[in-house]
Amino acid sequence: MTFASPPPGPTPNSLSTQRFPVVIVGAGPAGLTVGNILRAAGIDCVVLETESREFIEQHPRAGFIEEWAVRALQRRGLADTLLERAGTHTKCEFRFGGRRHRFEYAELSGDRHFAYPQPLLVTDLVREYADVRGGDIRFSVRDVLVHDLDTDRPSVSYVSAETGQREYVQGEFIAGCDGARGVTRTAIPATHARVARHDYGVGWLALLAEAPPSNDCVMFGIHPHGFAGHMARGPEVTRYYLECPPGDDPENWPDNRVWAELHERLGALGASPLNEGRLIEKRVLDMHNYVVEPMQFGRLFLAGDAAHLTAPIAAKGMNLALHDAFLLGDGLVNYLATGDPDTLNDYSEACLRRVWQYQEFSLWLSDIYHGASSGDPFRAGTTLARLRRILDSPAAAAAFADVYIGKEADH
Amino acid sequence: MTFASPPPGPTPNSLSTQRFPVVIVGAGPAGLTVGNILRAAGIDCVVLETESREFIEQHPRAGFIEEWAVRALQRRGLADTLLERAGTHTKCEFRFGGRRHRFEYAELSGDRHFAYPQPLLVTDLVREYADVRGGDIRFSVRDVLVHDLDTDRPSVSYVSAETGQREYVQGEFIAGCDGARGVTRTAIPATHARVARHDYGVGWLALLAEAPPSNDCVMFGIHPHGFAGHMARGPEVTRYYLECPPGDDPENWPDNRVWAELHERLGALGASPLNEGRLIEKRVLDMHNYVVEPMQFGRLFLAGDAAHLTAPIAAKGMNLALHDAFLLGDGLVNYLATGDPDTLNDYSEACLRRVWQYQEFSLWLSDIYHGASSGDPFRAGTTLARLRRILDSPAAAAAFADVYIGKEADH
Repeated sequence: MTFASPPPGPTPNSLSTQRFPVVIVGAGPAGLTVGNILRAAGIDCVVLETESREFIEQHPRAGFIEEWAVRALQRRGLADTLLERAGTHTKCEFRFGGRRHRFEYAELSGDRHFAYPQPLLVTDLVREYADVRGGDIRFSVRDVLVHDLDTDRPSVSYVSAETGQREYVQGEFIAGCDGARGVTRTAIPATHARVARHDYGVGWLALLAEAPPSNDCVMFGIHPHGFAGHMARGPEVTRYYLECPPGDDPENWPDNRVWAELHERLGALGASPLNEGRLIEKRVLDMHNYVVEPMQFGRLFLAGDAAHLTAPIAAKGMNLALHDAFLLGDGLVNYLATGDPDTLNDYSEACLRRVWQYQEFSLWLSDIYHGASSGDPFRAGTTLARLRRILDSPAAAAAFADVYIGKEADH
Repeated sequence: MTFASPPPGPTPNSLSTQRFPVVIVGAGPAGLTVGNILRAAGIDCVVLETESREFIEQHPRAGFIEEWAVRALQRRGLADTLLERAGTHTKCEFRFGGRRHRFEYAELSGDRHFAYPQPLLVTDLVREYADVRGGDIRFSVRDVLVHDLDTDRPSVSYVSAETGQREYVQGEFIAGCDGARGVTRTAIPATHARVARHDYGVGWLALLAEAPPSNDCVMFGIHPHGFAGHMARGPEVTRYYLECPPGDDPENWPDNRVWAELHERLGALGASPLNEGRLIEKRVLDMHNYVVEPMQFGRLFLAGDAAHLTAPIAAKGMNLALHDAFLLGDGLVNYLATGDPDTLNDYSEACLRRVWQYQEFSLWLSDIYHGASSGDPFRAGTTLARLRRILDSPAAAAAFADVYIGKEADH
């Protein structure tokens, strides 16, 4: 379905069902950003969220936001607190062959990462949406269902936390922002959207240690035993990753094995030893990606993880969600406020250009991370050559820096 | 084995066997370049070749020589005829989605390709080596064997074309330049060199058409049916490639099917139709690579296809062979003429840096060529994104141009 300019005059009201120009399913960064853009344009909407406000404001999730996304939030009045509180990252460090290799991507690209955990951003976006811009948001709803997607009056129903009753909201449009396990994507008939999937064939053991970071930047260890990662999560907590077999049991990773492998895989000449600490999280991540094409079915538009997932290879997930949200918010405003359908009609294609760029980069970077431990000497040789090139060739370094920080990604 | 400075004084002569400082097995671009460098320094050597002089001067093989290699030949007095006669290439054209996308790599990198078929280069190098520099070269030898590689007096024997007798030549060093099907590589014990292999999982149907080229540059067609390539081989002959199943039978490709697929895969808006002509060659290439590590065993040094093979994805093979030959020639001269062992001891590692860069590039480019026809929608999406990035992002284009033409490859 493509949209022509809407007919003039008000939309007729139903008596039995609440009606909104836009129903937003999911109060993550994507859904809340769309809601804030709509409210800023005076357009009515409702956000439905299965979790409580407290939960989404506190559930620990990472957040490296690329500078272009921070500036886009800022232009929409959504980055005041972020700009006050976020730390910025300008470099990373690769460790392999027992040596340290710094990579100053901000110097090359001009752009930085802003470290701002997702719950903090969500807190800001909820406050702005609900408390400042007067948006309607319903928390702790259950059993969300999408109805009549093949008509021009789709609706969403849910069991209300307050009444325990199923309630219906009708939307001229539905924004499906309910994440990887949400219902909106599954409401699209399989004949109308293709899901392209990629499995990396590795696992990552995700660890949180009560220990100060051991370096002034993110570290990536490339080692025949497997990849290892290090990211500060604050002055007293550090995130570590250890490549492991896919679906491995965390029970196979007692603390002494974890630390022995971290020291081995991240060890380098002249580097201070890693700071150890109590391990407060130990879980094995599924490393896979998917992309839904197109990101639209009728009047339903998917955004963020509902439309595409990317394993935490390159910290791209939240950035893609925000990119979708800016385009969807602007597209809905253009259509509903001024009758211009072009942004909305181009939505899926415009989002997917960046989505596929980031997916390509994730696979390319995954090869660097996992080639040395693949057991395939040809792959080990080519992926080490790839890493050497970005460290030694100015042209390759500049290109890598741009993709790493998400510049020039809309091809 | 590493080499210290040689003891002073002459090498003792054997009575029973001819002795040379260097025995070169194979009169391809690598072997002949090594021979010419040795002769220019007044060092004695012999080149052994299983084919006749006429054969190697006429056997049709492609040749795109990168500018850095041309300049290196020129500095050694080996490029006079090449520089007079070779055409230069400065751009290529990708075709996909029914559109043409020009890529001006010489404008970005400053370097060009020189189109100079291998038999012409071999003709020049043989003439210079044998007729000008007075080098010893023995053609049409049979049943070459390598002996005593684990000693410091290795030798090579062969059945002479003239006498029909087995003859022996002893070398202080042996240069193994006898290509992918040569014997020198196989003389290395499996415990002393690792062969890393990669199979692309596709076939290429290589075609020669008696037809003028249909474009002013090399063309690469990316298409769901499979890759297609177009390269001029002169004003009246054109090389085409069509991706096909690995090991496919050329009988499956009658002329009308060939032309229908070429038109389909290389068709583009605003492009003139392909010039058809009689198909004078039709064979299916094995698309695989290998790398031998290290490229040395004792006093045997491998160079060119004997040490590493790269499928004709990116026209890298002859360039790598020349790179090896420059390093090996210089290394042998430094050691034999001045007693400096450093270049020779660093030979394998120095060659392999460029070898692995080119292998990495071949795989990376192969993904672009074969992703659309892989049947995997995720791979199709990421590889199209990769192609779009090099066409649209100035930083990615600059990095691609450098690797395509082989600049900055010694990392």
